[in-house]
Amino acid sequence: MMARLFCYMMAMVMAMLALPVRAEDGYDLWLRYAPAEQARAADISAHARTIVPVENGSTMEVATRELQRAVAHMTGSAPTLATTPTAGALWLATPRSAPGIPLSLKGLGAEGYAIRSIDRGGQPVTLIAANSDIGLLHGAFHWLRLAQTNAPLDRLDIRSAPRIGLRLLNHWDNLDGTVERGYAGMSIWDWWRLPDYKGPRYTDYARANASIGINGTVLNNVNAKAESLSAPYIAKAAALADIFRPYGIKVYLSVKWTAPMELDGLKTADPLDAQVAAWWKAKASEIYRAIPDFGGFLVKANSEGQPGPQDYDRTHADGANMLAAAVKPHGGIVMWRAFVYAHDNPDDRAKQAYDDFKPLDGQFADNVLVQVKNGAIDFQPREPFHPLFGAMPKTPLMMEFQITKEYLGQSTHLTYLGPLFEEALDADTYAKGKGSTVAKVIDGSLDGHKLTGIAGVANIGVDRDWSGSIFNQADWYAFGRLAWDPGLSANAIAREWTAMTFSPDPRLVDPVVAMMMGSREAAVDYMTPLGLAHVMATGHHYGPAPWVSDLARPEWNPVYYHKADADGIGFDRTKSGSNAIAQYAPVIARRLANPATTPESELLWFHHLPWDYRLKSGETLWNGLVHRYDHGVAYVAGMQRTWEGLRPLVDAERFAQTEAFLAIQHREAQWWRDASIAYFQSINHLPLPADAMAPAHDLDWYKAQSFPYAPGHH
Amino acid sequence: MMARLFCYMMAMVMAMLALPVRAEDGYDLWLRYAPAEQARAADISAHARTIVPVENGSTMEVATRELQRAVAHMTGSAPTLATTPTAGALWLATPRSAPGIPLSLKGLGAEGYAIRSIDRGGQPVTLIAANSDIGLLHGAFHWLRLAQTNAPLDRLDIRSAPRIGLRLLNHWDNLDGTVERGYAGMSIWDWWRLPDYKGPRYTDYARANASIGINGTVLNNVNAKAESLSAPYIAKAAALADIFRPYGIKVYLSVKWTAPMELDGLKTADPLDAQVAAWWKAKASEIYRAIPDFGGFLVKANSEGQPGPQDYDRTHADGANMLAAAVKPHGGIVMWRAFVYAHDNPDDRAKQAYDDFKPLDGQFADNVLVQVKNGAIDFQPREPFHPLFGAMPKTPLMMEFQITKEYLGQSTHLTYLGPLFEEALDADTYAKGKGSTVAKVIDGSLDGHKLTGIAGVANIGVDRDWSGSIFNQADWYAFGRLAWDPGLSANAIAREWTAMTFSPDPRLVDPVVAMMMGSREAAVDYMTPLGLAHVMATGHHYGPAPWVSDLARPEWNPVYYHKADADGIGFDRTKSGSNAIAQYAPVIARRLANPATTPESELLWFHHLPWDYRLKSGETLWNGLVHRYDHGVAYVAGMQRTWEGLRPLVDAERFAQTEAFLAIQHREAQWWRDASIAYFQSINHLPLPADAMAPAHDLDWYKAQSFPYAPGHH
Repeated sequence: MMARLFCYMMAMVMAMLALPVRAEDGYDLWLRYAPAEQARAADISAHARTIVPVENGSTMEVATRELQRAVAHMTGSAPTLATTPTAGALWLATPRSAPGIPLSLKGLGAEGYAIRSIDRGGQPVTLIAANSDIGLLHGAFHWLRLAQTNAPLDRLDIRSAPRIGLRLLNHWDNLDGTVERGYAGMSIWDWWRLPDYKGPRYTDYARANASIGINGTVLNNVNAKAESLSAPYIAKAAALADIFRPYGIKVYLSVKWTAPMELDGLKTADPLDAQVAAWWKAKASEIYRAIPDFGGFLVKANSEGQPGPQDYDRTHADGANMLAAAVKPHGGIVMWRAFVYAHDNPDDRAKQAYDDFKPLDGQFADNVLVQVKNGAIDFQPREPFHPLFGAMPKTPLMMEFQITKEYLGQSTHLTYLGPLFEEALDADTYAKGKGSTVAKVIDGSLDGHKLTGIAGVANIGVDRDWSGSIFNQADWYAFGRLAWDPGLSANAIAREWTAMTFSPDPRLVDPVVAMMMGSREAAVDYMTPLGLAHVMATGHHYGPAPWVSDLARPEWNPVYYHKADADGIGFDRTKSGSNAIAQYAPVIARRLANPATTPESELLWFHHLPWDYRLKSGETLWNGLVHRYDHGVAYVAGMQRTWEGLRPLVDAERFAQTEAFLAIQHREAQWWRDASIAYFQSINHLPLPADAMAPAHDLDWYKAQSFPYAPGHH
Repeated sequence: MMARLFCYMMAMVMAMLALPVRAEDGYDLWLRYAPAEQARAADISAHARTIVPVENGSTMEVATRELQRAVAHMTGSAPTLATTPTAGALWLATPRSAPGIPLSLKGLGAEGYAIRSIDRGGQPVTLIAANSDIGLLHGAFHWLRLAQTNAPLDRLDIRSAPRIGLRLLNHWDNLDGTVERGYAGMSIWDWWRLPDYKGPRYTDYARANASIGINGTVLNNVNAKAESLSAPYIAKAAALADIFRPYGIKVYLSVKWTAPMELDGLKTADPLDAQVAAWWKAKASEIYRAIPDFGGFLVKANSEGQPGPQDYDRTHADGANMLAAAVKPHGGIVMWRAFVYAHDNPDDRAKQAYDDFKPLDGQFADNVLVQVKNGAIDFQPREPFHPLFGAMPKTPLMMEFQITKEYLGQSTHLTYLGPLFEEALDADTYAKGKGSTVAKVIDGSLDGHKLTGIAGVANIGVDRDWSGSIFNQADWYAFGRLAWDPGLSANAIAREWTAMTFSPDPRLVDPVVAMMMGSREAAVDYMTPLGLAHVMATGHHYGPAPWVSDLARPEWNPVYYHKADADGIGFDRTKSGSNAIAQYAPVIARRLANPATTPESELLWFHHLPWDYRLKSGETLWNGLVHRYDHGVAYVAGMQRTWEGLRPLVDAERFAQTEAFLAIQHREAQWWRDASIAYFQSINHLPLPADAMAPAHDLDWYKAQSFPYAPGHH
């Protein structure tokens, strides 16, 4: 009878394993908790026989459920709950729950944690300790990362606390459900059916973010609609805040500057008008009644057509401080974007944010952060770091990265952004001498700021895999990990992500990480090599269009950026040109003044150089440009070969998706290369280097390409 | 050792059962194949020990995989494949694979099947036989329906063939991914990444449709873009056709009349112009080269602003026949919509399609169907059947139902459409005497047509549950089942669907089916009782707005339809009014001429009556109207109570969704009722019946409601 039952169970298991109900569709992100190999499963089990949670509480429930579910999936048996830590326990403890925990919590703050393997009366126990339940949740996710990546689970002695206070996603999600620069389907916020219907995706969103330490989310597009501050939409935001709260994630809103006029008929939105200030104070109180831990406001003002305080001859500081006063009594903050350039300013667009904002340093209220994109133009495949970093020591500057790949291949190109983020964070501003990195500006350590922040424009939508492709998930993951610790390496993060997302098998991890690590440089090469920028097509930004010169504002045109002519190419930002280099610290400015001491990766960003300028390799600028295009295309072909070799190690569904996307990427890399070369050749009339193929079509063919239904353009 | 392994396996199974990775999110539709109770599982297993498929072939692979997967999930053990039928075999056979099968296939055609329990040399075998592999696939799905609904699996003797030839979904999906009147998210067609990336959803779409006998799909919106006929989009459609082919599903396209002008610069789109005809012939050939079994074209012409042959003083028949000639050599057909009403025609909108099309009867080519909506206005909660049914005996008329609930509560109201479809199909046209039902018009039996069709405007989008709500899935299901057999009852279909979607437990099926069956009548009552129609808000059609009177065309305004004034309410379509009743057969027209012999459900559709007109109940029209509104609201409250009682029998996720949506429905039913009563009371100044509550707000409040982000309006 036992044997028969056994056979039945065996058959059951075999059937379940052989015919999975659901394919690997990417929904589980890096929280897959795939069954571990037998020895590893035993190892995990031995370290998670029981869970000793702190006490009741929604965050503790979340942490406990996550640990149970994860261990059950990885090992086949779920840990039970216990009240005292015995052998093999995961002991979650705060000073309140366990006053005598053998571990200092100093320096861990409200969100950090320590994990230590301890001996408790002869019994091996894994202690996860923190000052708060949220810290414990972060610690639990850290332990699960170890468990998923085949890391040792004994002799642990880990301490971790976030270096940056506000670690936020910015959703450019519209109230009609579209997502500006979204390549993963519609918004995951079902505004229409909120607050009544709260689908399970909201919880999984919070889990994913908490697992990488993200602690805030701006729900709506910076190109905001006034209605997002109306009572019905506040109720909708509150429903989301209630779901996110146990995960330590606060909700923020983008605001439209003219909301007082649009919603309540005020005659002005002048920040120094008493009625306007009173309106915002009342609005803040209304929001905080619904969302007691509301984070604050994000503002895009006097930027790309958005209204703002300058419409009333007030400064950005006047505007930010008025809003800051409204949220201050409730503990809220204001994030004021520095992404500005004016239609009536003929100066180099790259200089304008600095010129506008640097003079305001010291004028912002103490609950205002100025949010600065990593570069001075707009999320290009490569930009030098933004000159505002290091230039406003009295103002907390927040980094704004773009996780969604508006300019780096959108949903289908495999271009891992970890190296881009790392490069920007590691850039040295020299503001206080060598070592004054951008990371130290934004983590507050350079200038002694307590209020610190970093934001990533989310790449999340309703696509089943959240991010439009499996590999785009890595960018979300990398952003979160770097926001917690800007000192991590993009490579290490890629290893973690790959192990959790696919498998810790080194036969898979090594080639996938190698592929990822070079992928962003490859995109730079096939799109914008040697410091070129902003040569994409108009509107949807899909594909190449370096020839565009007919848009209303000069700085919207690609020709404005590359300035290619018969003699040469590049934007002269030295003294003989726009002198943008003077916005950097003198030591940097000196280097950038000379092409020979300018990094070749930024060469044409700062210099207009003749086509026969000699690169360090000895080849001419033109030949070097062409070879870089070719390198980019060849790299993608290499990724295709690598991926093909991984077929036996990857499930069919995710294999097929990546295979299809790499084919698209290869075709489009070739297109970028060919269109760019065809265009530049029409300007310089130079022959191609001997080893380079002619473009597949003539220039007119590339110019004629049209994509009226390209996504992400709302 | 055996025991230890056993314990491990047990633990594995327990963990998998206790902590499901995925909640019941509705993705599996009615193909859930939930584990059966032990005795039933044994019964299913006993009838599906082995599968004997016909031979290799993609359709056979599909059928075999479906049977294996389904039985494995229901029972825990997958049937194996065999070459000869032994005891417990599911034997799939065609005359070609098994010339001597003990079963006549006469009358089953190319898509039908027979299922019979036979004794084969003393061994009990279930024989599924058909003339084609597609027939076998339909038979396999039929058997799986029996298995899922706890129906007996022995002594089977079933024969089934579709009564209607073309059973199509119409997707009103735009090339930019939006869906006109879609309430389930964006289009499931990822046009942007087709044909390169073919995600798994396309296959699941085909499975779901094949399981209910749908054999065609029109991929794009009837408000078509010319680009859908361009080479890149033909390649995208071809990729979908390749996926759908093994499931017996053909692809069709909506066409824009001016495509020859827009795509290739022709000077005209006149259907009698030789160049135009040649363009369409060439275009058809191009399509058929990519899609050899392409179904044909669907056309919305000279309707709501779309161009058409009347722009060139040609008739609908001229237009349809020109297109028909283009696809004819390839075996294609043209579906020409009769949904027309002209801005310069002052006559009753309900009469115009009949007036336009009836004179063309006999003029259409033999591969043209005229596609007629179920009613003469536009998919209202209730409409009398369209007078064209029965009026064009020489022309195959195709039914167009709307599965997406533009006018019946969109994504959140539980309003099962089975009864609406049934009512329309069962309506008697009296065209050839009593019993000349609409069903017999469209199945061709009344007038001897071989070419027959039925279309449903799909309610499908990328929402995880496909249809915006679990219960909306029932409408897709019901459409498919009725398209196969218009004689089925909405009740029986609801029973099947409920058993498969939730559980065959009668404690669940009985109350859920009861709830569903009354739900459409409830929506009629709280929205448009007693034959009212078209009183919804402008544009998005969300919510009530019977007061609207300021739209450009008279027939766009709700006041045009209800004609309420101080004296009475309703549209006089008798001789004293528009005389639309004369478009029906004389016996019907006579009945409708008199309010007393007009069904009360259609009373105000045909008559303008005084507020104190006496209903059959003896109460006044006004009081009866109010009571019907109240009945509608009360019914929804009753559904809420029923559903609450089912909490123990439904998984948490689907329970919560339906609970939330019923709450929305109840609030909105009350809103419809209150707004309508407030408005009509402002016209008739009558007191409410003693038992009726006053509306919650005054009329101005209802008029002020605004929903700029309501979905589905593209």
